[in-house]
This record gives sequence, C-alpha cells and structure tokens, in this order.
Amino acid sequence: MPSYKAPVEDFLFLFHELLEIEKRTDLPGFAELTPDMTGAILEGGAKFCEEVLQPLNQSGDEEGCHLENGVVRTPKGFKEAFKAYADGGWNKLGVAEELGGANLPSVITFAFSEMGSSANQAFSMYPGLSGAALGALWATGEDWMREHVATRMADGDWAGTMCLTEPHCGTDLKLMKTRAVQQDDGSFRLSGTKIFISGGDHDMTDNIIHMVIAKLPNEEGKYVDDLSTVNFFMVPKMLVDPATGEITGPNSVSTGAVEKKMGIKGNATCVLNFDNAVAYHLKGRAPEKKADDGKVVKSKSAGMAGMFGMMNGARMGVGIQGIAAGEVAYQNGVAYAQERLAGRSLTGVKNPDGPADPIMVFPDVRRLLIGSRAFVEGARALAMYVSFLFSVARSSADEKERQEAEDLSQLFTPVIKAYFTDKGFEAANASMQVFGGHGYIRDNGMEQFVRDARINQVYEGANGIQALDLVARKMTAKGGRATLTYFAKLEAFIKENEGDAEMAPFVGPLKVGYGRLGEAAGWLMQNAAKNYDHAGAASYDILNIFGTVTLAWMWAQMAKLSLAKLKAGTEKQDFYKRKLTLARYWMEREVPMTAGWVERAKAGADGLMELDAINF
Amino acid sequence: MPSYKAPVEDFLFLFHELLEIEKRTDLPGFAELTPDMTGAILEGGAKFCEEVLQPLNQSGDEEGCHLENGVVRTPKGFKEAFKAYADGGWNKLGVAEELGGANLPSVITFAFSEMGSSANQAFSMYPGLSGAALGALWATGEDWMREHVATRMADGDWAGTMCLTEPHCGTDLKLMKTRAVQQDDGSFRLSGTKIFISGGDHDMTDNIIHMVIAKLPNEEGKYVDDLSTVNFFMVPKMLVDPATGEITGPNSVSTGAVEKKMGIKGNATCVLNFDNAVAYHLKGRAPEKKADDGKVVKSKSAGMAGMFGMMNGARMGVGIQGIAAGEVAYQNGVAYAQERLAGRSLTGVKNPDGPADPIMVFPDVRRLLIGSRAFVEGARALAMYVSFLFSVARSSADEKERQEAEDLSQLFTPVIKAYFTDKGFEAANASMQVFGGHGYIRDNGMEQFVRDARINQVYEGANGIQALDLVARKMTAKGGRATLTYFAKLEAFIKENEGDAEMAPFVGPLKVGYGRLGEAAGWLMQNAAKNYDHAGAASYDILNIFGTVTLAWMWAQMAKLSLAKLKAGTEKQDFYKRKLTLARYWMEREVPMTAGWVERAKAGADGLMELDAINF
Repeated sequence: MPSYKAPVEDFLFLFHELLEIEKRTDLPGFAELTPDMTGAILEGGAKFCEEVLQPLNQSGDEEGCHLENGVVRTPKGFKEAFKAYADGGWNKLGVAEELGGANLPSVITFAFSEMGSSANQAFSMYPGLSGAALGALWATGEDWMREHVATRMADGDWAGTMCLTEPHCGTDLKLMKTRAVQQDDGSFRLSGTKIFISGGDHDMTDNIIHMVIAKLPNEEGKYVDDLSTVNFFMVPKMLVDPATGEITGPNSVSTGAVEKKMGIKGNATCVLNFDNAVAYHLKGRAPEKKADDGKVVKSKSAGMAGMFGMMNGARMGVGIQGIAAGEVAYQNGVAYAQERLAGRSLTGVKNPDGPADPIMVFPDVRRLLIGSRAFVEGARALAMYVSFLFSVARSSADEKERQEAEDLSQLFTPVIKAYFTDKGFEAANASMQVFGGHGYIRDNGMEQFVRDARINQVYEGANGIQALDLVARKMTAKGGRATLTYFAKLEAFIKENEGDAEMAPFVGPLKVGYGRLGEAAGWLMQNAAKNYDHAGAASYDILNIFGTVTLAWMWAQMAKLSLAKLKAGTEKQDFYKRKLTLARYWMEREVPMTAGWVERAKAGADGLMELDAINF
Repeated sequence: MPSYKAPVEDFLFLFHELLEIEKRTDLPGFAELTPDMTGAILEGGAKFCEEVLQPLNQSGDEEGCHLENGVVRTPKGFKEAFKAYADGGWNKLGVAEELGGANLPSVITFAFSEMGSSANQAFSMYPGLSGAALGALWATGEDWMREHVATRMADGDWAGTMCLTEPHCGTDLKLMKTRAVQQDDGSFRLSGTKIFISGGDHDMTDNIIHMVIAKLPNEEGKYVDDLSTVNFFMVPKMLVDPATGEITGPNSVSTGAVEKKMGIKGNATCVLNFDNAVAYHLKGRAPEKKADDGKVVKSKSAGMAGMFGMMNGARMGVGIQGIAAGEVAYQNGVAYAQERLAGRSLTGVKNPDGPADPIMVFPDVRRLLIGSRAFVEGARALAMYVSFLFSVARSSADEKERQEAEDLSQLFTPVIKAYFTDKGFEAANASMQVFGGHGYIRDNGMEQFVRDARINQVYEGANGIQALDLVARKMTAKGGRATLTYFAKLEAFIKENEGDAEMAPFVGPLKVGYGRLGEAAGWLMQNAAKNYDHAGAASYDILNIFGTVTLAWMWAQMAKLSLAKLKAGTEKQDFYKRKLTLARYWMEREVPMTAGWVERAKAGADGLMELDAINF
C-alpha cells in the first residue's frame, strides 16, 4: 500500500525563505501570512490529505464510478470525504469573504491543491472543478446566482462542472454543436451533448451546477462555426427558484455514460446530454466597454471572457498535478529502494549483516529518484513563484511590477502545464521502475500513479497545444515583451552571481542553458514569420528548453540561498545540503539536454512536412 | 476500436533488400528463403495475427484472467485461438524437425513474434513462453522428456512456463528460497513459491510444464545463498508417466493468485506454490567439459547453462515487443490524425471543403507520428540484422565471421531489450497523445497499448539492469572485443560513404553520433576502473547513445539502399521516399540528443552518491 507525507517543510521554505511572502504586506492578505500562520494552514491541510483523502485513493481506483439508474455512484467513502472537505473549510481557502471564504492568496490554494492531488487526484478533482465553476459563476453570474447558487457551492452543499468538450471537438471549440435557443419570454433552453465532464454527475451533493458553453445564433439568426457565437451558460442539474434558491425539480440534463478510463477512475467522467434544458445566459458582470481596437465588446459574450479568465488558473492547477504525481511516486520509490535488498554495491558491500544491499546503493536507481525529486522541488519553486505573481499582477500598487507579473505568469503558464505534466509522468514512471516487476502489480499502487498522471498531459489543452501557445503567442505577443522581461531577469541573476566561486557550478550551466534558450528564441523570431510551420515544428523542443532552463534558474536561486544558510550555520543541515545535491543534479544532468533540443528546433519543419498525409 | 495491419512489406524489404538473406545459402535453411517463400509465410502469419489474435486483444484486456476453484480462466476466445495457433503450426516455425517443426531461422520467428505481439501481446506470451520452455527442455532434458513431453509441447497440446522470480528476489537469484530435496530413490521433490509466472496456469491445455530454478544443498549439505547451488528442474503441473507419456494425476503445484496488473491482463501472471512437488533435475545434454579456467563444469548445473542460453533470445523477444507496441500504436495514431478535424493548418487551409483541417497538418502531430515510425522501422532493421547474426553465429563455416556475429549479437542484446522497450513505450504514448482526451478512454484502445507496453521495460531484467550489463559486461568483455568490432564496422561504413554528396545528410550525423559514442566509451574505459559507480552512473546515458547511434547506422544503410532504388527507378516510389523521410528524421531529431547524453555520462557518479540514503 502506498503512503504519502505532505511536503510542508518545502512549502514553508519556498514561502518564507525563497519568496519571503510575509514581507509583501502591500498585497491583500499577505500581512497575515507569517510562518506561524502558513505553517498552521499547511499542517492542517496536510493532515486532512494524508488521513482522509490518501486512504481512499487506491480503493477509489479499484471501485471506480458507476452509472446506476441514471445516477452516478462514486466510490465508497467519497461522499463522506466530500462532506469532511467542506466541513473543514478546505474548499473555501481562496473563496471571497462575501461567501464566507478565507480569501487566501493563490500560493496557499495551489499548495493545498498539490497536496490534495498527491493524496488523491481523482477525488480532488471534484472540489477542484466545483471551485472553478464557482469562480466562473462568481465572475459572470447575476446577483440571484451569487446569492442562492454560489453560496451553496461555496458551502459544498452543491457541486459544479465545466462543460466545454463535445464528441467531435475539444480544442477547436468553434465547431461545437450545442445550441441555446432564446424563448419568447427571454429565457434560454440548451440542447447538445458534452463529453469528458469531470464530476459530471455524482451522489455527493443535492445539486450540480453545470457551467456550459454553447452557441447562440449570429446576427442573421443562423448557427455558424464562429467562435464569436459561443456563449456561456449556467445549467443546473436540479432547477433552482431564483427568488428563494429552493430546488424545484429536475432539469433536462441526463448522464449518457460514465467513461471507462485509463486512470483517475474515482472521478466520474461523464457524457452529459442536455435536452432543451433550462439555461441561464451569463453575460458577465463588467459593464460594456471598448476593446483595444475600439470595438465595443458585446455583452452577450462577455461571460466567455470571464470563463477564459479562469483558464490560466486551471492550466496552472494541472501543471501542479504533475508535480503532485511526481512527489507521491517519488516518496514511495524511495521507501522501496531503502528496503528492497538485491545484489551488492558496485564499490563493495554496504549492508554486511544482510543477505544483499538495499538497491539504493545503485547509481542508476539513485538517478531515477534524484531526477524525480529535482524536478518536483524545482517545479514546486516555480509554481509557487508564479502563484505569487498572480497576486502581484492582481494587486500590486506598482503598475510596472503589475504588468511584469502579468506578462511573466502568462508566459510561464503553458510551460507549467505541459512541461510539468510531462516530467510528472516521467517521475511516476521512474519510481514505478524502481519497483521492478512489483511496480506493475496493482496492489502496490505505483502503476496507478502512472495511469493517473497520464491524464495531465492531455486535459486542459493537450501538451502540444501548450507548446504552440508558448511559441506562437506567449513568447511573441506584444513584440516579445514577456520574453524580454524574463530574459532580463535571467541575465541580471547570472551577472550578479557569476563572480561567486561557490555559485559557479550553478551559474555556469544556467548561463549555458540560457544561451541555448536565446538561440532557440532567436531562430524562432527569424524563421517563424517565413513559415509558421517552423514554429509548430520547433514548439516542443523550445518548450523543453524553456522548462529546463527555468527550473535551472529556480535551482540556482535555491542553491544560493542554501549556501548562505549553511554558511550562517543552521539546524537544517540535511535540508540545505539536499537542495545543493538536487541543484547539482539539475545542472549536471538536465541542462545538458538543451544541447540536443536546440539542434532539433533549428532543424525546422521541412523534414516533418515533406511526407504526404496518405503516405504515413 | 483499434486495428492492425502487419508490416509484411517492410519485413520483405529487410530480408531481401537490406540483408539479402537468400544469398546466404551456406546457412542452414536459408537457401529456401526466397522472397516467394518468406512472403507466403509472412502473409499467412499476418492474416492469422490480424484476423484471429487482434480481435481478442481489447476483449482480453477488459475481461482479464480469473482464478476460479483453483483453476485460471483465460478470456473468452483465448482457448480457441491457442488451438488455432497450434493447428496453423505457428508455434512450430522455429522448432526442430525432429519435433515436426519447420526449423526456420530466427529472422522468420522473430518477425512473426513481432506481428503476434502487435496484434495481442497478452495472448502471444502464452505460446511465446511455451516455446521458450520447450527450447530449454529440448536443450537440457532427458530422452523420455524429449519423446513424451517436448512433443506434446511442440504440438500445442501442452504449454510451458519459466519459473524464476520469487517474492523477495528477481534479479538477485542467489537469494532464492525454493529448494529441491533429493529422495532416497534419487528422485527430487521441490518446494517454494514463484511469482510473476506468465501463463502460470490456464485452461487452454491439458498440462503445463514448469521449468523451474531451485536450490540444491552445497557439498556440506546446506542450502546457501550461492548461485552455484541454483539448479534447473522440470515440474509438470500434471504428472507424466516417463514410460508412456500418459498423465497420471496432479502434481503438488497450486496457483496462489492471479495478479491484478497494469496491463497484459489477458495473460495470467500467477503466484505458483510448489509443495513437495515431483521435480526432474535437468543436467543438460552436453557431456562434462572443462571451462575456460580449466575447472570441470559440474554436470548438476549444466542445465542452468542451457537455461541461460535461452535468455539472450528472450531479451531479444522483449525488445521486439517494444517495436510491436510502437507499430500498432502508430498505425492507429495515423488513422486518427487523418480523420480528426480540428483547427486549420498554420500555413493556410488544407481542407477547404471541411469545417476544419485534419490534425495531420500540424507539425507537432507529425513529429509524434514520424518519430514513432522512425524508431519502429529503424529498430526492426536492427532486430532483423541481429536475428540474422544469431544464425551466422550458430552456423557460419567461417570461424571469424561466427565469432564476430556472436560478439555483436551479445553486444546488441541489452540495447535491443532496454532501448527498444523505452522507445516503444514512448511511441505508444505518442500515438495516445495524438488522440488527445479520446486516447485516455478505454474503448478507443490507445491506453491499452501504453499499459501493455509498460511491462516490457520491466520484465526479463529491468532496463537499468540491461544498461549495466551493456557497460559493465558486454562493451568491456574480452578487452572490449565486441565494441571494437562494432566500431570498425561503423568506421568502415562512414569512410565508404562520406564522399557521396547524396549520403551527406545521413553520414554526417552518423559520424557525429559515432564520435559521441566513442567519447562516452573512452570516458568509461578511463573512469570505470577507478570507481565502478561511474559505470553505473553513466550506464543509462551510454545505453541511449548506443541505441540512437546504432539506429542511425541502420537508417544510413536504408537511406543508401533507398537512394539507389529511386535512382534505378522503382514502382515503390512512396516506400523508398518514406524511408528517406524517416532516415532524415532520425538524423535531424534523434542523433542531436546524444550531445546531452554524453555530457551527462561524463558527469560521473559523485553527484548521485553524495546524498546519504536516509536523506532521500
């Protein structure tokens, strides 16, 4: 049976030593984030994840979800855990104070979401998606929805979903067929089929609020394949009286199927059929305003803007699921490597009293484990840094800092989504590999981590789409402003530290990696405009360079801090020494791979495009 | 529902154009291997795999194997397919003529095994393991076993297994606890628990012949942790009368459990309990002889030598399962990419009559697919070359050629096992990724390819063990003789072709890759002796360089041939042009990665070993 211990110590290191969040008293809510406070919140969250969620992870996978008489049954214990989650207030960490929430900044909410996902990814998606739906409703809904619906969702009495994908379209949403029809009384009815709806139905709450995108007719009254006709609607599973908030009966929403999937089996992935269902058009709460190009943003699609606003956070959340998968798999891989006896160290017996040495003595086993941990802790540092930037972007009084934070968080988001989930899958596989044949056996739990982690590369925009978003939009938008901001930060760090002999093993590789990132970016600028396929062909390699170099930057910063702490004398010797080992690993064994990726990127598109589709 | 079309055309290209096997009339059985003959065999095998095995792949995964009243029930249709397999003679392709087999060389048997594994890996393991058990019995068994047991196995009336692993030991077999005790009448009884026994029990045959390793007492009569006390036994599930071959009743072998696994669920992976079971000691058929060091090889362990002799073939077979997984996943990925409509090409609309372009227009989707195919066809070329070397090593009249073939096939075997199965898993994941969210849904079959392919990296010696075998044994044995032989071949090819302008895009990268392989090998020679952990730390990177460069060598040879065919004029224009595209891919996008691996290899062991085990 696998186990999990939440990495609270590492979060506290990131919050209070690397980011020093408590010093940003100018940002709302940050003044209260003293180490005592964050420690108490994280310890409480850790206890809940370790003791309530983790024990249901394997049983939830084995039992799965079942559609019985039109209702989805979740695995044993999930309903009680969902109630305990709400009772503990864990779903309200980041919720607005008007809703009774703690309104804590996203460093806290994302830290908690990592722990929840490590403990039980399939379960954590239910409150996670409900929270996303709540956020979208809060941003776009009318007053009665805030009063009667959002409150119930915040209390965990009701759940929520996000309904985007249809059988024939996911990424290309303009092709969607789900339609909303305005009735004579001005209300809307919605019809269509949505698929891959996480938590689309279940038995844990009395109602489920579906946040659905669907088409309205264009100005000629026709339904067309045009993204501007896609609108945002609230469709409750059970109808709600707008005046009182009482449930008045079922809406025309039915569950067509619960998908059988590779993993996250404890989460009900549903096909939902909307059959002339009562729908509420979400026009957004912001007043009409002129866009950059002078056009008036039509109020009918303003709700969509509200919804898309949520999606950066959602991609961040999925990236963090990649970290979460790597963390829990790593912990169990280490436990096995310390216990399992086989063979003898290549450099002489290490366990003379035993029949063999623990396999931790083998360099290649250590490579698998250290590689995973170096990814996990480097990625966690970047995730917390970007979570912090979210707050800066929203609330800093300094406009330049605000804009930089917005630019950087936009730039890093597709990297976090795609690179972290690829590496998280790799880490889950690495720890499964440490188990040898025992890793392939379901009872041992390792293969579940692999199956669960695999979804992260796919949902919330497949990783190839993220890579394209990075090179074709985020790196190049506004004349590459975000890229230049980031590169200036990298250069400043390198310049500041390259004279320091102790930092040389870290700054040297960072500089090499940064050189290759710059080389790839320069190639992109010169060649993409000539042939956009070059951008597509190079996108994944550039994503990998970007992710590797950015974690090298985080590791160099953590190494600097660790060197200072060790020099100053600290009781946590092992903690900082390990950070240096992990930083060394990243520089010695991950940064070198950028050499290959930059060559690949510069190979361009011709070799990929020369074959006719029919000849594949 | 996934589909499969066996790559017969590619096998025929490899046999008759690249390897020109029919010209080796000096090798037994090769004179008959005309294109007509091999084509007929492969077409027949393809038809069987496509029509009988493939349709049972997904249903076998869904149903799995179940232990009912002590007997394992295989999925619906497996028993009939096993009979059809035997009736078609597919289990006798490589079997000795004395047993009614076709005695065909391993190029044919491995080609067929790739097709069977693509069609249905879980099923193909039953006849595959039976064949391995038969081979071991034929090599080591007494006359009555050949007459009464091997014949039944060859006919497919009885099946067989290989029983090595125990709960606490897999790789480190000297720790095993299973013991054989000689009775007063000279016979043996065997007791212990074996795990991970593929096809350990099932309902497809009347008897199962277990080939078991177990300990005998040492000269002082004690059971000790010493590999020299491990011996080889035949333990039938049902007892057999040595005089008549009749089944006389059950032996004391029971199935403790059928493991629940990540994949290959149609194959029964059993825990087998031997409780004072009747066992036959296999001493091998060769007369006693002196080993290299002058010691007399004890007859009691000669059977072990016979068994280990099988293991090179088994590792080769697993490597080919990696190719098989990549091939079938690729085919289905292509079909989806050609059909699925989403978005528009980055360089303008390609499907103006449709609502969107097929996703095959996107460079990153092509990267995923071409990468898989370039691996699959390069790996198949190497696998068939090494299969051919097996025959040369066994039967060439030229002693130098025989020795070289033996050296090279030994050298390449761990690479084929580990590198091919890693890349096969990667290819299965790549094609699953092409499906986006639909790849995660079980009905579509893509995630099964990933789950099934994952075992290949684990069984028959986990890939880390293969990497260590490569650097610590195969590359360095006999003063690095095999390595030097291989490098001479690479150098000769480069020298012969580097003046050819058309070959420059292939020879240039091959030369670069070879340079890095040489650099890594040189580093290993200089540093491993100082500290063996350096070999362990560098092993996986060297494995990756070795695999990548060796496939580059195969691709350069195939490119040369394709250029010549196109120049000479051929009806198969598309076939040879595609080979050039795939060769280009390998040179442009795989060889560059060797730059990173060689740096990693040279980083040495210190960074991996500095952390105390307790601080992981």
